[in-house]
Amino acid sequence: MTEAYKKLEARFHRMGVLSDAGQMLHWDMAAIMPEGGAEARSEQLATLSVLENELMNAPEMGDLMAAAEDESLDAWQKANLGEMKRNWVHGTAVPSDLVEKMSRAETRCEVAWRKARADNDFKGLLPKLQEVLDLSIEAGKAKADALGTSVYDALLDQYDPMMRSDRIDSLFAELEAFLPDFTSEVIERQKAEAKPVLPVGPFPIETQNAVGLDLMKAVGFDFNHGRLDISHHPFCGGIPDDVRITTRYDENDFTSAIMGVLHETGHAMYERGLPKDWRNQPVGKARGMTMHESQSLLVEMQACRSEEFLTYAGPVFKKAFGGDDAAWSASNLHRLYTRVEPGLIRVDADEVTYPAHVIMRYRLERALIEGDMKLADLPGAWNEMMQKLLGITPTDDRDGCLQDIHWPSGAWGYFPTYTLGAMAAAQIFAAARDANPAIPDALSRGEFEPLMNWLAQNIHSQASSRSTDEILKDATGSILGVDAFKTHMHNRYGN
Amino acid sequence: MTEAYKKLEARFHRMGVLSDAGQMLHWDMAAIMPEGGAEARSEQLATLSVLENELMNAPEMGDLMAAAEDESLDAWQKANLGEMKRNWVHGTAVPSDLVEKMSRAETRCEVAWRKARADNDFKGLLPKLQEVLDLSIEAGKAKADALGTSVYDALLDQYDPMMRSDRIDSLFAELEAFLPDFTSEVIERQKAEAKPVLPVGPFPIETQNAVGLDLMKAVGFDFNHGRLDISHHPFCGGIPDDVRITTRYDENDFTSAIMGVLHETGHAMYERGLPKDWRNQPVGKARGMTMHESQSLLVEMQACRSEEFLTYAGPVFKKAFGGDDAAWSASNLHRLYTRVEPGLIRVDADEVTYPAHVIMRYRLERALIEGDMKLADLPGAWNEMMQKLLGITPTDDRDGCLQDIHWPSGAWGYFPTYTLGAMAAAQIFAAARDANPAIPDALSRGEFEPLMNWLAQNIHSQASSRSTDEILKDATGSILGVDAFKTHMHNRYGN
Repeated sequence: MTEAYKKLEARFHRMGVLSDAGQMLHWDMAAIMPEGGAEARSEQLATLSVLENELMNAPEMGDLMAAAEDESLDAWQKANLGEMKRNWVHGTAVPSDLVEKMSRAETRCEVAWRKARADNDFKGLLPKLQEVLDLSIEAGKAKADALGTSVYDALLDQYDPMMRSDRIDSLFAELEAFLPDFTSEVIERQKAEAKPVLPVGPFPIETQNAVGLDLMKAVGFDFNHGRLDISHHPFCGGIPDDVRITTRYDENDFTSAIMGVLHETGHAMYERGLPKDWRNQPVGKARGMTMHESQSLLVEMQACRSEEFLTYAGPVFKKAFGGDDAAWSASNLHRLYTRVEPGLIRVDADEVTYPAHVIMRYRLERALIEGDMKLADLPGAWNEMMQKLLGITPTDDRDGCLQDIHWPSGAWGYFPTYTLGAMAAAQIFAAARDANPAIPDALSRGEFEPLMNWLAQNIHSQASSRSTDEILKDATGSILGVDAFKTHMHNRYGN
Repeated sequence: MTEAYKKLEARFHRMGVLSDAGQMLHWDMAAIMPEGGAEARSEQLATLSVLENELMNAPEMGDLMAAAEDESLDAWQKANLGEMKRNWVHGTAVPSDLVEKMSRAETRCEVAWRKARADNDFKGLLPKLQEVLDLSIEAGKAKADALGTSVYDALLDQYDPMMRSDRIDSLFAELEAFLPDFTSEVIERQKAEAKPVLPVGPFPIETQNAVGLDLMKAVGFDFNHGRLDISHHPFCGGIPDDVRITTRYDENDFTSAIMGVLHETGHAMYERGLPKDWRNQPVGKARGMTMHESQSLLVEMQACRSEEFLTYAGPVFKKAFGGDDAAWSASNLHRLYTRVEPGLIRVDADEVTYPAHVIMRYRLERALIEGDMKLADLPGAWNEMMQKLLGITPTDDRDGCLQDIHWPSGAWGYFPTYTLGAMAAAQIFAAARDANPAIPDALSRGEFEPLMNWLAQNIHSQASSRSTDEILKDATGSILGVDAFKTHMHNRYGN
């Protein structure tokens, strides 16, 4: 008998479909909606959220979950019931008027942030950002009570289920014990070498687009179930059966758009590979942002910035853009794509200095959430930490604490997943290569099947059936750790 | 006290927002969705419909409407309550399992139709089309009981509220008393004249697109609240604050894409001009398909195929496409755009022969709905009527009874609105010109403000505050009739 469980499945299916509708409307909003559509769109999205919330808060949900506990369920059904509960705790912990207040404050603050960033006006943003912070703390407290965690961990749990800050502290401490000296060494060594040759543009947008589409196909993207479009902020949106990725092009720079497309293709392949039988059930969703970021970074950083793949890509680029042989050689491209240099902007950072950007944001947001720092002191604290971790100081807040959308949009607890994802990517890629030593060689021919088959089986199809650590343990032999990332750093950037 | 009324407003608002979300998802599906997204999309759309249906069928709705009747409402609130009731009757007449069955059968039949049309296989489509017809009749009967109309009129009422078939019979009879002889005369006369010069292509798609965008701006389309995209079937979708129109381009033919864009822009201007204060209330919606089609045909047929507008457009086209002066003269363009020739395909028909296409579909669908004809006899009846009304006979069903998507998709009762809309367009344009004689002259300078201001005030902003006839009476001095259309025919095509 699985009567209660089946009822829950039907309810979560409906919530899942509503969320799908919201995802598609979100994509449209971010990618192609005219500005004047914003008001109506936010009404649509809010209404879908409210309906989803009403379904989640139906009075009989708790009883159904209790009854389902006693039913005879298989492993995936059990895991699904567990995920239902997790979603239910998150979805019911925060009173609906607070949810609505947050949604409004975040939209307001996000809009104000765009202007404040352009005007380099942190003070102007401060009251609105304070409101978002205060409401996030209030919601975090409610979730912390329900989850039995600290406030910060409750926020973190929204993006990376089961991850806790003490774990992050120790992982990041390991990174910090190793990265600063390593980074200096790499920079010194790269300085001593000849500079890589920059391919000379312009690189016509049409051609970049065509190359991007070809490489997406090579990775295995199925254009019957997705699209590539242009948007100001590249992202991966949509749903598993209709994945929408976006990029932006710069005629004078071919490197960022194409690597951006490959990065988003990694996200897309994860979504596509989620188990078809569990669509719109909690257990069928991606495991969380650490795992999601691991899949984009695995494709971009591990696979596509490897000398093997660049051996394949060089001639493809040369054929598309023409120009000098020297610029398109695998070794030159590899040096270009692995250049290390501390910079102010996170999204432009290389693989080696990126963790420092994340670590400082993690420290700062914890201090703000835990009340150890005032929001007004953020710019000073930011610049100080930037100097300490990366040896440079922003000349203004635009390139400092105003650069990211996360905090104004209420995404506190999100930043750590970028670097946890990079660590997971290194660990997963190493395991895939161990399991199938033919993977690097296949990449040098532009063949992703061996890699993608392994990922499909060991990561993508696992969805949320187990925790990130459990999936990693089964796939790689150990839970999330720093070792593989360190090895990757040494292999790619070391002597 | 307007307590019950306000409660109804809140409920209809929520339904309206859900419907908006569905509209945007529909646009995406028709314009840009990859095929593999269809299954998930139909789930999303079905779920939104089910939720809307559940809200409409809430047990307290009847009581709230009765209570609101006794409240003191202003004219628009009263009209809104009236429209709420109309929607409620339509929305609750048909049992939800029948609604679901219809939705499934229509989707199946629409998919089968695409193949059957390509394969010229009416017999293959027959069982699925029969299912759609039977279910439509069943639903029509339920609505007929609730509305107190005939079955056909109940279906018609979905697309053109308050329109009835006896009215259509007498309007179409007037047309038929005049059109056949008139058409023959026009064709004879045009045969005797020199043929218009065809501008020589190719007409690059980019250039066509740029010209289309410029003309949309001239008409008054606000790109902050809408987009122009490419799709296989041109249409106007989206919502008033985010209108999405589409077109298709042919490098060898510049006439159809640009006139198509102007046609859809007419639809879009109506949507944009609906009263902002009544968004997502039934009274704030477009009045129906007759009025909607009147607005597209007014822009395309009345305004943009006039010699005045073509005086402006000729030089615009010449500048964009280059080529021979003779081809781009206003008089040549006008002759080109008013060429009359009976053809097999409705969507390619000229203004003079178009009504015959509609009249025959109206007769045939009534016979099918009223049980006077078997579906298996449709191809024969079609060809016979085509020969009788237009003097030509299709050589296959592909260009005969399989050409339109309406019946396979369950849209019985829709066809008459095309020709009713053409009549309304003539009537409205004549009234606008009478009210502001400067309109034609302005069009010859590419200025649409005088026309659009009059339409905004007299048609667009009136939304569903009154019936089509009442709005027409106030705007033009009389209810829907054939006179203005006849006058237009004589002025444009007569001696």
